[in-house]
Amino acid sequence: MQELKERILKEGKVLPGNIVKVDGFLNHRIDCKLMADIADEFAKLFDLSKVDLILTAEASGIALAAICAYRYGLPMVFAKKAKSDNIEGGLYQSEIYSYTYKKKVTQILSKEWLTKDNHVLILDDFMANGEAVRGLCELVEQAGAELVGVGIAIEKGFQGGGDRLRNMGVNYHALAVIEKADENGIIFRED
Amino acid sequence: MQELKERILKEGKVLPGNIVKVDGFLNHRIDCKLMADIADEFAKLFDLSKVDLILTAEASGIALAAICAYRYGLPMVFAKKAKSDNIEGGLYQSEIYSYTYKKKVTQILSKEWLTKDNHVLILDDFMANGEAVRGLCELVEQAGAELVGVGIAIEKGFQGGGDRLRNMGVNYHALAVIEKADENGIIFRED
Repeated sequence: MQELKERILKEGKVLPGNIVKVDGFLNHRIDCKLMADIADEFAKLFDLSKVDLILTAEASGIALAAICAYRYGLPMVFAKKAKSDNIEGGLYQSEIYSYTYKKKVTQILSKEWLTKDNHVLILDDFMANGEAVRGLCELVEQAGAELVGVGIAIEKGFQGGGDRLRNMGVNYHALAVIEKADENGIIFRED
Repeated sequence: MQELKERILKEGKVLPGNIVKVDGFLNHRIDCKLMADIADEFAKLFDLSKVDLILTAEASGIALAAICAYRYGLPMVFAKKAKSDNIEGGLYQSEIYSYTYKKKVTQILSKEWLTKDNHVLILDDFMANGEAVRGLCELVEQAGAELVGVGIAIEKGFQGGGDRLRNMGVNYHALAVIEKADENGIIFRED
């Protein structure tokens, strides 16, 4: 998606450890007009007539997923982060490893809001190692729901999360795949 | 707001400890159409021509604030929860007490995305003791920005957070104020 790539090149910052910071428009300050354009791009890539629920993960995916769901006329649900010792009943849960916080995180989702009858599109702002999305896929599987696809705004292609989904045959699309990010700048993977 | 009150009465659950659970449409599963109606209601109560930034708190306020900001054509920024020992430079920060997690939480916001030139409308899904909003007001003050107002979807009137803001003279509006929530049901404060 050209508009998104241009914003990344113009406003993104590469920090030590190949961290790509895009918090001016995607995951701290939110450019809502850009989120709507991203929503329209996902709408071209996925058959939304087959989707009845948008699923994302707390916290940075929520803004994007909410604006997408609003534009599609669909409900949205987000998996919450929980401490492992604070699990109530009636929940799906998945264990993921957070590279940001360097610890295990439990994602929880109420069984009330995801059932075997749902057709789910997972959307998230960022994919690096892909742990958050792996956990979301597990929640969908636990529910016995259908995973229609996974859409990501920015993928860090060199960290493997996106390629693992591609290799698994998931209907996966990322709108901007960063192949390299270092002191020399950002290079995208060819479409 | 009649539509919101009806949804609370129809789908809300009162749990022990006067907890009002509305996670089917507001803060776990999100009814995006209702969020848009709430956005329109806030637009009647606040002079949006004076607002250039929507501010909310991670995590449950993000979906509502994002859809509001999108409809108003404004950017949105959300304060992040941080561990006190993980504070970087260039940040505003406020200490609040989380009654949900029964511990102190530090809210952080990058100085890049809130400055003295901003005119801020704080929006959040829920107000109980008002700690999250108190922390957000502090961030606005630290930036030297102007606080145009505070809008809340559901206020638990009996927990004092909303009345404290009213008494301080803040331009504050809540769309549904719950006066009482117990085993006998939910009663709203008269408008």
